[in-house]
Amino acid sequence: MTVSNDGKWIDKKISRRDMLKLTGMGVAGVAIGASGLGGVMKVMGYDVFEPVADSTTAVNKVDFYGKHQSGIITPVQTNIYFASLDVLFTSKKELQELFKQWTPLVVRLMNGELMVDLTKNTRVPTGDTGEADGLDASNLSITIGVGPSLFDKLGIQHLKPEELKDLPHFPKDQLQKEFTGGDLCIQACADDPQVAFHAVRNLVRAASGKVEIKWSQAGFNSFPAGGGSPRNLFAFKDGTVNPSSTDEKDLNKVVWVDKGWLKGGSYLVARKIQMHLETWDRTSLKDQEATFGRYRDSGAPFGKKKEFDDFDVEAKDSNGEYIMPDTSHVHLARKSGARILRRSYSYASGVMTNTGTHDAGLLFISFQKDPAQFTTVQNSLGRMDKMNEYITHRGSAVFACLPGVSKGSYIGEALFNAL
Amino acid sequence: MTVSNDGKWIDKKISRRDMLKLTGMGVAGVAIGASGLGGVMKVMGYDVFEPVADSTTAVNKVDFYGKHQSGIITPVQTNIYFASLDVLFTSKKELQELFKQWTPLVVRLMNGELMVDLTKNTRVPTGDTGEADGLDASNLSITIGVGPSLFDKLGIQHLKPEELKDLPHFPKDQLQKEFTGGDLCIQACADDPQVAFHAVRNLVRAASGKVEIKWSQAGFNSFPAGGGSPRNLFAFKDGTVNPSSTDEKDLNKVVWVDKGWLKGGSYLVARKIQMHLETWDRTSLKDQEATFGRYRDSGAPFGKKKEFDDFDVEAKDSNGEYIMPDTSHVHLARKSGARILRRSYSYASGVMTNTGTHDAGLLFISFQKDPAQFTTVQNSLGRMDKMNEYITHRGSAVFACLPGVSKGSYIGEALFNAL
Repeated sequence: MTVSNDGKWIDKKISRRDMLKLTGMGVAGVAIGASGLGGVMKVMGYDVFEPVADSTTAVNKVDFYGKHQSGIITPVQTNIYFASLDVLFTSKKELQELFKQWTPLVVRLMNGELMVDLTKNTRVPTGDTGEADGLDASNLSITIGVGPSLFDKLGIQHLKPEELKDLPHFPKDQLQKEFTGGDLCIQACADDPQVAFHAVRNLVRAASGKVEIKWSQAGFNSFPAGGGSPRNLFAFKDGTVNPSSTDEKDLNKVVWVDKGWLKGGSYLVARKIQMHLETWDRTSLKDQEATFGRYRDSGAPFGKKKEFDDFDVEAKDSNGEYIMPDTSHVHLARKSGARILRRSYSYASGVMTNTGTHDAGLLFISFQKDPAQFTTVQNSLGRMDKMNEYITHRGSAVFACLPGVSKGSYIGEALFNAL
Repeated sequence: MTVSNDGKWIDKKISRRDMLKLTGMGVAGVAIGASGLGGVMKVMGYDVFEPVADSTTAVNKVDFYGKHQSGIITPVQTNIYFASLDVLFTSKKELQELFKQWTPLVVRLMNGELMVDLTKNTRVPTGDTGEADGLDASNLSITIGVGPSLFDKLGIQHLKPEELKDLPHFPKDQLQKEFTGGDLCIQACADDPQVAFHAVRNLVRAASGKVEIKWSQAGFNSFPAGGGSPRNLFAFKDGTVNPSSTDEKDLNKVVWVDKGWLKGGSYLVARKIQMHLETWDRTSLKDQEATFGRYRDSGAPFGKKKEFDDFDVEAKDSNGEYIMPDTSHVHLARKSGARILRRSYSYASGVMTNTGTHDAGLLFISFQKDPAQFTTVQNSLGRMDKMNEYITHRGSAVFACLPGVSKGSYIGEALFNAL
């Protein structure tokens, strides 16, 4: 929903460009009518009216307000721009100001609106970098998380959930500092790569001098026209066993934190996993399938017909052999007994300059109510997982994704109320 | 168009997955009925029946056969995967074999078919890496070019067109070896990033031991729903002054080579241009617009209303000042008198590890009948161009893109006929 110059609600579907024109006179002092924090704030020297409401007219729009942040159980989009940030400040108050500042900007971005009015005063830097002008909301979701290091940096260790700590070292990890850790994360997912990038760029820019990007990664998913999960760059379907986004009971068991100030939030684990495509491509289909424990064509688990068929990991054939090999990725992951919500994206970033092989792989992202769920799965994979021959973990980070925001509130308010 | 197991044409729209099933028995010896080179060849140990015809039923299909290669005047797609390759052989015969091998594979890729049959013998490496299985043709275009170094490497300098040589050094170039040059290029553009990547991956893989990737770059374009050119990461519209893809006379003047074995081909110039987004974003809109000589909002040239309005670069206002500043990018490019066909893509590849700033920019690609057209434009920009403050050229390459292929022929045949 949006507001015209004379304060009336506009009810037709509008694009970011129309919005630009409609809010053109906003700087002169037209307040946005939704209830909430109220008031006007400065971003890049521009007035931003806060709060703004979820648009009811925007095309391809994901809602911002709700019990949980978007981008967790939101249907997976085609593109991600993931950024891990370090903060340049040391007080909790500045963190609070940052989150208050970001809140209306995130709402606007998810509405497919420009960040701030642009049409006045062309002699100062523009309030929105503009590359998403003319593009619609593109189902943009924005998910903000806080890393373990943030609590140490701000001297608020007493508020750090005990579950929030750096992941342990796993066998075969070859983590690189430049893809690891971070005080904050912004996960921007959208059905357009420029919309996702624009969101991160502008949030970071609005927080200039307060945060800097430690590492970032773009990624994509390509969805088969006929439905089913997207294939990763090993050509296998990924994320099949996720809990259903409509099974609230199951989500409460697997994804949502149910205690403390993080209640309604979730833990995000990000792993930048290089996939050695050339090695994989020299492997027979039979061995590839045995590595996953699934058929490439259908995505079905061994012994089954369809991608989403359930299976008994302990089932054996008439020779007493496991139907799903006990060194397969799916067998070991399932056997761990732990469950996670996978929400990963592929990347293809050119070639490794030293070897000429593809610098490609998976930006693995999972959500869980406790990072220990991921650790349990990963430890189960351990040294046994046949997949280890084909992948190298290059980056790693864990973040506590803040609870959802209700109208009149702001990102992370529960954290500050707990102070 | 495709052929069923009993040799009948299938006339319904089919996806890559259907195709897999239809051609399932192909290995047993069912010949594809189209006329052409004929015969069966081996790729990765698999039989490939050649040639294949452009499908008449594939969804979102760009034609392979024609006077010119696809991907030059083909409507710009949303994604590119560009690869510059070095060859590992030294004879023209091996080059010819490579192009003969690639021809039916390129046709299949552009048809949205799997590269080869996959359903038999799962004990050898698969003939198609499979990640595009289930995705349609996605308007994939594939453009293959030969670089100046290839002619030297194969000892066929006498066939190197005099226009084909490394670009001169330009002021402010900061080229890096790892993004520069190459013996061959594959430009794969599609409306799906995974389809574009899959094409390059599989062509390189099929030529394993014959070529290796020297450098590669993924990119994207996001098209406004309302039409018009996409915006680059400086938020300005790019490629506005291109010749029309339907104006054959103009294309003959600007794009298509009209002599020698390269007749019907075109020269591709690739420049990896880093855009310093943080510096740009600190600049006022007024200065940004003066840098381009266009308005950001509309894309119109200074003094005009609409993106595609023509303009007189020498026009002055009542004070005798140029309406379009004579240090602006568009003024200088236009004043050079040279014209090119721009077909660029944005990239956002994370952050520079040394500075934490965005590693983002433009994979500038232009086509012209002579690389001197590009050189003339670039020299005109020279040290004057206000844009220089905001960009750094990191990579550079030039390729002669081969003429189109007629049925029964193969990629680059004219080159070998000229030997």
